[in-house]
Amino acid sequence: MSYERIHEAHYLALALRALREDIGTGDITADACVEPDKIGSGHIVAKQELVLCGVEVAETVFRKTDREFTFPKARKDKDLLQPGETILEVRGKANYMLKAERTALNFMQHLSGIATVTRQYVQAIAGTHALVIDTRKTTPGMRALEKYAVRCGGGHNHRFGLFDGALIKENHIRACGDIAHAIQAVRGRAHHLMQIEVEVRDFDELDQALAAKADVVMLDNFSVEDATRAVAHINGRAKAEISGNINLQTIRSYAETGVDLISVGRITHSAPSVDISMLFD
Amino acid sequence: MSYERIHEAHYLALALRALREDIGTGDITADACVEPDKIGSGHIVAKQELVLCGVEVAETVFRKTDREFTFPKARKDKDLLQPGETILEVRGKANYMLKAERTALNFMQHLSGIATVTRQYVQAIAGTHALVIDTRKTTPGMRALEKYAVRCGGGHNHRFGLFDGALIKENHIRACGDIAHAIQAVRGRAHHLMQIEVEVRDFDELDQALAAKADVVMLDNFSVEDATRAVAHINGRAKAEISGNINLQTIRSYAETGVDLISVGRITHSAPSVDISMLFD
Amino acid sequence: MSYERIHEAHYLALALRALREDIGTGDITADACVEPDKIGSGHIVAKQELVLCGVEVAETVFRKTDREFTFPKARKDKDLLQPGETILEVRGKANYMLKAERTALNFMQHLSGIATVTRQYVQAIAGTHALVIDTRKTTPGMRALEKYAVRCGGGHNHRFGLFDGALIKENHIRACGDIAHAIQAVRGRAHHLMQIEVEVRDFDELDQALAAKADVVMLDNFSVEDATRAVAHINGRAKAEISGNINLQTIRSYAETGVDLISVGRITHSAPSVDISMLFD
Amino acid sequence: MSYERIHEAHYLALALRALREDIGTGDITADACVEPDKIGSGHIVAKQELVLCGVEVAETVFRKTDREFTFPKARKDKDLLQPGETILEVRGKANYMLKAERTALNFMQHLSGIATVTRQYVQAIAGTHALVIDTRKTTPGMRALEKYAVRCGGGHNHRFGLFDGALIKENHIRACGDIAHAIQAVRGRAHHLMQIEVEVRDFDELDQALAAKADVVMLDNFSVEDATRAVAHINGRAKAEISGNINLQTIRSYAETGVDLISVGRITHSAPSVDISMLFD
Amino acid sequence: MSYERIHEAHYLALALRALREDIGTGDITADACVEPDKIGSGHIVAKQELVLCGVEVAETVFRKTDREFTFPKARKDKDLLQPGETILEVRGKANYMLKAERTALNFMQHLSGIATVTRQYVQAIAGTHALVIDTRKTTPGMRALEKYAVRCGGGHNHRFGLFDGALIKENHIRACGDIAHAIQAVRGRAHHLMQIEVEVRDFDELDQALAAKADVVMLDNFSVEDATRAVAHINGRAKAEISGNINLQTIRSYAETGVDLISVGRITHSAPSVDISMLFD
Amino acid sequence: MSYERIHEAHYLALALRALREDIGTGDITADACVEPDKIGSGHIVAKQELVLCGVEVAETVFRKTDREFTFPKARKDKDLLQPGETILEVRGKANYMLKAERTALNFMQHLSGIATVTRQYVQAIAGTHALVIDTRKTTPGMRALEKYAVRCGGGHNHRFGLFDGALIKENHIRACGDIAHAIQAVRGRAHHLMQIEVEVRDFDELDQALAAKADVVMLDNFSVEDATRAVAHINGRAKAEISGNINLQTIRSYAETGVDLISVGRITHSAPSVDISMLFD
Repeated sequence: MSYERIHEAHYLALALRALREDIGTGDITADACVEPDKIGSGHIVAKQELVLCGVEVAETVFRKTDREFTFPKARKDKDLLQPGETILEVRGKANYMLKAERTALNFMQHLSGIATVTRQYVQAIAGTHALVIDTRKTTPGMRALEKYAVRCGGGHNHRFGLFDGALIKENHIRACGDIAHAIQAVRGRAHHLMQIEVEVRDFDELDQALAAKADVVMLDNFSVEDATRAVAHINGRAKAEISGNINLQTIRSYAETGVDLISVGRITHSAPSVDISMLFD
Repeated sequence: MSYERIHEAHYLALALRALREDIGTGDITADACVEPDKIGSGHIVAKQELVLCGVEVAETVFRKTDREFTFPKARKDKDLLQPGETILEVRGKANYMLKAERTALNFMQHLSGIATVTRQYVQAIAGTHALVIDTRKTTPGMRALEKYAVRCGGGHNHRFGLFDGALIKENHIRACGDIAHAIQAVRGRAHHLMQIEVEVRDFDELDQALAAKADVVMLDNFSVEDATRAVAHINGRAKAEISGNINLQTIRSYAETGVDLISVGRITHSAPSVDISMLFD
Repeated sequence: MSYERIHEAHYLALALRALREDIGTGDITADACVEPDKIGSGHIVAKQELVLCGVEVAETVFRKTDREFTFPKARKDKDLLQPGETILEVRGKANYMLKAERTALNFMQHLSGIATVTRQYVQAIAGTHALVIDTRKTTPGMRALEKYAVRCGGGHNHRFGLFDGALIKENHIRACGDIAHAIQAVRGRAHHLMQIEVEVRDFDELDQALAAKADVVMLDNFSVEDATRAVAHINGRAKAEISGNINLQTIRSYAETGVDLISVGRITHSAPSVDISMLFD
Repeated sequence: MSYERIHEAHYLALALRALREDIGTGDITADACVEPDKIGSGHIVAKQELVLCGVEVAETVFRKTDREFTFPKARKDKDLLQPGETILEVRGKANYMLKAERTALNFMQHLSGIATVTRQYVQAIAGTHALVIDTRKTTPGMRALEKYAVRCGGGHNHRFGLFDGALIKENHIRACGDIAHAIQAVRGRAHHLMQIEVEVRDFDELDQALAAKADVVMLDNFSVEDATRAVAHINGRAKAEISGNINLQTIRSYAETGVDLISVGRITHSAPSVDISMLFD
Repeated sequence: MSYERIHEAHYLALALRALREDIGTGDITADACVEPDKIGSGHIVAKQELVLCGVEVAETVFRKTDREFTFPKARKDKDLLQPGETILEVRGKANYMLKAERTALNFMQHLSGIATVTRQYVQAIAGTHALVIDTRKTTPGMRALEKYAVRCGGGHNHRFGLFDGALIKENHIRACGDIAHAIQAVRGRAHHLMQIEVEVRDFDELDQALAAKADVVMLDNFSVEDATRAVAHINGRAKAEISGNINLQTIRSYAETGVDLISVGRITHSAPSVDISMLFD
Repeated sequence: MSYERIHEAHYLALALRALREDIGTGDITADACVEPDKIGSGHIVAKQELVLCGVEVAETVFRKTDREFTFPKARKDKDLLQPGETILEVRGKANYMLKAERTALNFMQHLSGIATVTRQYVQAIAGTHALVIDTRKTTPGMRALEKYAVRCGGGHNHRFGLFDGALIKENHIRACGDIAHAIQAVRGRAHHLMQIEVEVRDFDELDQALAAKADVVMLDNFSVEDATRAVAHINGRAKAEISGNINLQTIRSYAETGVDLISVGRITHSAPSVDISMLFD
């Protein structure tokens, strides 16, 4: 995984917004009880098995309250942790540690939750040809981080948004008349490095998409049987993506149909937070 | 529930940020396929039983892409909906409807998810004296909306953040020497409309907090038996809050101990999204 | 007083806004006359007796124009200074010192003005039980700093704004029917750490507020005699705040009535600036 | 006075910032007590003689909480009002009126305070040739409004900041060697529509400034006698400004020396707020 | 051309920034001379042949100074105009028209300049198979508008930035060892709708890129002869882009080599402004 | 030239905006191919004769992606460079160097283009009394930098915008009745350090402007002959500026008429970018 400073600027904005949300006009309790210059240290600890994601964001949160925090020990994003293992050792002013604690944990428990669930889906289809990919069903404002969490869990990303990939759906088709005209319209507008994906709901639409040379077809809510037939029918003429309410019980059957990509909304929109907490020394 | 325009300003910022995240440098597909002035309409529909939350935010999202959207039919936040019921009818330019769709749904499915789970907890303790309250374990940047979703589900809010209520924990106590000194320090700093809550881990700390006239005590990770004893011991001298990994199986037993407040982290941090989708007419 | 970095972020925004206001498209005079790398030093000096407030803000202003400023000597906020005493010794690039001078002084002369006037009110009621508290009558955009200045002068703060404390006034009462219903409405909405204050204009309203168990009553424009009677009548059932055009002549008489809190608008909205200036060495 | 919408954008930012400062996470009291759609009306009333300033800003504040506020009666900035006169009649949703009230009043009482004091200084020198002008000693973030308030009170403005006029002071002179070189340096850098003012502390410096063809000289802390002599000495070769702790007692004597401009810091930095309040009908 | 309101939000930010840059603390001349409510009208007129671009941006600029501007006549972006033709008729407050004039013209003369030059390049290769495309050599902050201007002139866009298309250059290759490894690394990271382009400097690199199944090859600084040979050699296995100091003299020869795409930096970075001006009626 | 950090804040905002425009959701190619910690170095080189402008901005761009970039060699703004000369040596993380390269070059090639063209105009009138000055015809958002580039090329600046100098044109005159009234209106509103310029289209208007004591007259679209006569007619009573489609062929004849100032729009709005590129070592 790469760590880009221009993105750090993005994290900084998110971190600052989150800190302001929590601290508002001041931390009444810590400011009354804890001298600003007293040094302390603490450990952030996993309380369940989890795939770690968000360590750098958490460090950014602490440093945003006081530049002088250090992190003598830090596990890395993508690591698989067991209950009781230390994620991050934090050393710095106790007053600010108390101010930053909840916000730092909120980022990590959410992102590690996504990475951990993603890993379950990836493991469920181990050995098949298919990739687990995410969707645009993300928490408003958190997409860049949530898509990064999917990668930490071993998943892959679909397009980031409406701007970096073309996905033709029913309404676009209807507005253009048919699939062929829709593909033609998008080819005229998209730059030459963009491929075009078409969502199809049955074999008739699949044939139209293939005839119009769609680069990728999305088989929307196909049964396992239909997906198997569709993959055979496509026969390498386009990449195939399965979409629609995939869950841990059904994903392996779909993967075994031979599709290339399986998109799963719930790895981002319904992953429960993992249990982590901070212990002060 | 009230709807304040100064908060609308807040929603607008969130909505715009979320739209930018999704639309980025432009919606390649819709801009190629759908004329900007063509009018269309659609229905957002519940696909499961849910407590609705986020209708006004969704309207804000649509209006942010085009001022002229209208909503001929709209259910209200807090309504309980059955599968198949229409949440919102949307009428306006089809091009913008496609651009706003995902972002509007992302807000509603997340917030309604929280409201729906909250309602389960509230129903689980129906008839008892206790209130279900939330925590500060929220998604960064979304706290105001998530706490509003808790209210829509029938729950109550704890303090918003570190600034509008004092909660003395172990580290504050240690920094001040003992509970009595910590309470005294906070009383000297907090304004006269703030009450003070103290987190206690055993009966010894409980006694100290009561002796120092804490307004509220938080019984941290108490068993049901200990909580029962603690409520009897407190005997009205302070309000009592139970905290720590409450779930749907255990909440009723805790409520029946006679505590006043039960805080539940998972109603915000681990509520799965509800299933809603948009159908174009 | 504590110094929180998340608040430093707030000061930075204020400082930068103020510097931009003054420097705009560039300091014509200094840029023409003073080489950017020439080092100089200067002293900011009190020219009257004053309670100091704003030293850290002033340092932030200088550092915002050039990161390398140092402050070999600095008095502390809350200090009482005599005419001629040095507040802050500044060392750094002369060009930037000239650019930052006026903005830094503008913050300090305003905040120290508030602290100095507050101290006069606090001294006027020395030995009584009452506290001098501020109001929401502050300069737009400067409330956090002005309320901090009040604390530097020995005063206390009322609620910060409409969000961190409930104060029921005539219009709220009218909308709810009576005082009892208004208190009940607020108790249902406010979290459990908030107390409720009710503004009363006569003894009838005072009785209603006490009957409805208001936590604090604000005696609005009561005469000293009525305030005395009211305090006796309340008899510890609620805290009592006096409000309404208190000045240095009248405050002691009010304090001697036994009220708990005396709110004074003019310590923030009408405190004249103190006289301080910067001398270049 | 003109009213520019690009400045309205500026007022909007200020107004929104001030509203956020006050309302924060929500107005607990009004939201609990007052239905959002209930219509009400109120009057903002002068409680002392005052020169009005800030009516449009106040309207902006109300409209920022709800677009539908109307103002059936409104006096104009610059009007002289007597105690009891109505400044502004406000009609709209009672809930938002309560939320906006304090912020709207805070702007008006501060700006009208400046206009009212300015008028006293202007009247004090009525019949003389001199103009009362302001300084850069303004409240951080409020300079544009405060300088506008000075104009409402009949005063004139000095340069807005460091960028739209050149004022050579002791330090600039020292950095350049002497007054002549400083003027030359600034002439080389300033565009051709800018005049140059030089601060002089005695007759020797005055002679140098005149010899170097300064457009304006600022007589810094000159006594009335010295100012009289200086005006005679200048004899029309430059404009003359008097500066330094001018007050209502001394200003007329200075004006009668024949100077062109008298700058007064206290009309901005030490003007007490005027007394205005809002009555709900 | 589509007109997306989320982009209008972007234009608004740009327009406001540009207006602030020009108007700053106020338009001294117009505010002194022209009453704010006086209505006037004007015509923006082409003074040379030009391809129009920026009409909607100009309208946004006027409306940003006063919401009530109307535009009784407006030509459309992409229109070819002759000297003397009216681009836009503007009706509204004369004061604001003077304030907005320069900023509105600055946008239009710059964008129409780009569209006009682009058209020359497109016409120069009329009848060939090749497309004129732009580069990332744009004015900082103006890329979205400048790329839109290229489309108005009949050109096409390359990728918007580093994020929506992969272009492997010498340094990426060196870091990965060779072209094959670089392509493999990018395929593992890019989502499935992205194609990969490789910059090659000679026939050896071209062979490597083709062997590694690059989707597009960029022939960097190839002579016309080499480009001809390269197109034959590629023989449809990849798309071919020519890049490197193309000008109006050389572009046709390159287009006739049979390449698919010709990228031209100077249509964005060196297009002179067109001559347009505003006449007041 | 001075380098002010408050302006650095301005550059930072521009630099960040430009980087975000280019990098968006991430640099697909560099992040896939180049390890974040690998160190590299590169040279930015002039490929034509040019007057350098923008080195500090370019450094700011690199540092904004990674704080640890160093610049072992750097030429200075205003330097005249020959083809092949190194402008800036850059050392730091290769990954970030690739991310920042294009944005840094975009700033420098644009600003050096303006400086280089300006120098041609300045040299064309060498030995005359006249100054080359710029106009308000600048790229939206880039005025401060573009006006700085004009100074680097040896030119001078006209007023920055509408706020720091008064320029009376036809419409202002018409609104006031005549030139004398317009000048009087502006004198009443402008502060005492501002001079007034009047645009005149013939000798009648010139006489009016001189009679009304305009400080500067702008001779709008005067022929060389008329300009010669006008200068003689003015005879030192005001400064004279020539304006209107000056180019490299005509500027010397105008300069020799004896005018003081010649404003040239094309040095900012139509200067082609210079050719510079970055070589990686």
